[in-house]
Amino acid sequence: MKILIVGASGTLGKKVTAYFRNNHEVVTAGSKSGDLQVDITSPGSIETFYKNAGPFDALVSIAGAGHFGPLKSMDHLDFKKGIDSKLMGQVKLVLTGQHYINPKGSFTLTSGILSDDPVVYGANLSAVNGALNAFVIAAAIELENSVRINVISPGVVEDSPGYFDTFPGHIPVSMDRVVSGYVKSVLGAGTGQVIKIF
Amino acid sequence: MKILIVGASGTLGKKVTAYFRNNHEVVTAGSKSGDLQVDITSPGSIETFYKNAGPFDALVSIAGAGHFGPLKSMDHLDFKKGIDSKLMGQVKLVLTGQHYINPKGSFTLTSGILSDDPVVYGANLSAVNGALNAFVIAAAIELENSVRINVISPGVVEDSPGYFDTFPGHIPVSMDRVVSGYVKSVLGAGTGQVIKIF
Repeated sequence: MKILIVGASGTLGKKVTAYFRNNHEVVTAGSKSGDLQVDITSPGSIETFYKNAGPFDALVSIAGAGHFGPLKSMDHLDFKKGIDSKLMGQVKLVLTGQHYINPKGSFTLTSGILSDDPVVYGANLSAVNGALNAFVIAAAIELENSVRINVISPGVVEDSPGYFDTFPGHIPVSMDRVVSGYVKSVLGAGTGQVIKIF
Repeated sequence: MKILIVGASGTLGKKVTAYFRNNHEVVTAGSKSGDLQVDITSPGSIETFYKNAGPFDALVSIAGAGHFGPLKSMDHLDFKKGIDSKLMGQVKLVLTGQHYINPKGSFTLTSGILSDDPVVYGANLSAVNGALNAFVIAAAIELENSVRINVISPGVVEDSPGYFDTFPGHIPVSMDRVVSGYVKSVLGAGTGQVIKIF
């Protein structure tokens, strides 16, 4: 299976990439690193990315940033950061990628726990994650040629202790469990699933 | 109680406005009609709206549009329609309004059933509604001075038979039930609630 992984150089991306490399053809992508470069905030860059990647069976996105900061001082430009990057970036990977993916292929996006269990300063990422979860259940009923789509919603990961203070009382999940979510989405048969790892 | 209603001239807005007018001071707003005009896609227009409205106790938003059409031909500009209007428009009403609202005031936004129960052509509105629901649960834990925030997520309303074919098998909800959601949010004490009317 040929698997494109966008955001392959991140903490999570590295582990997911390592897993799939064992048995599949993996093409890594990132804004600055990887086999191919792609700026997910740019529709033109995404189109070029797919053209260069060639036909593929799975697109895994572990990419996109958001704004983290107090609601009190948040303005619409702060809020747009997550909209333009983590939300629209991943949505564009699907809207464009649907025209390049092989039949029976799959898209796997990444949201996160904040849509269900918010933390202080997290309103932008809560909204972005909620949008991604809902987008996936809706896109699943329209994708053609048996193409599937799921989203992984991880909690705070054990390997990222720097986040623990920001998520008081959240129980960190193991990296193995999170990687398993991506494996289930790519190699399983489900579609329209929000795979919650928390 | 002084209640600002944005989107007061719509099918639902008219009924909500009529209800609150019985016992409260209501200021209606719309893009072209109402006591005050506001373009919710414009941060400057929203700031002017709040300045002209003066201090208030509740902001009810039943405003904002999205894109409805096939995923297959959807591009990022189609998708941005719902992001810029129904999502960012309502988020901006809160981000700006938090600096004008009276203590113990409330924000009530409007999402919709598509985040939970998608229909064909509805991917943009599913995402927008999911974002609004998650934004509200996150904003609720940061708003100061006991200000509350909720979102009403209505199903297809009996009064809008034009939508029935688009929502096959959805059981229409009565307008009275939907109006009751807004009443609960504004006059009740809950916060961070997604009030599902379906």
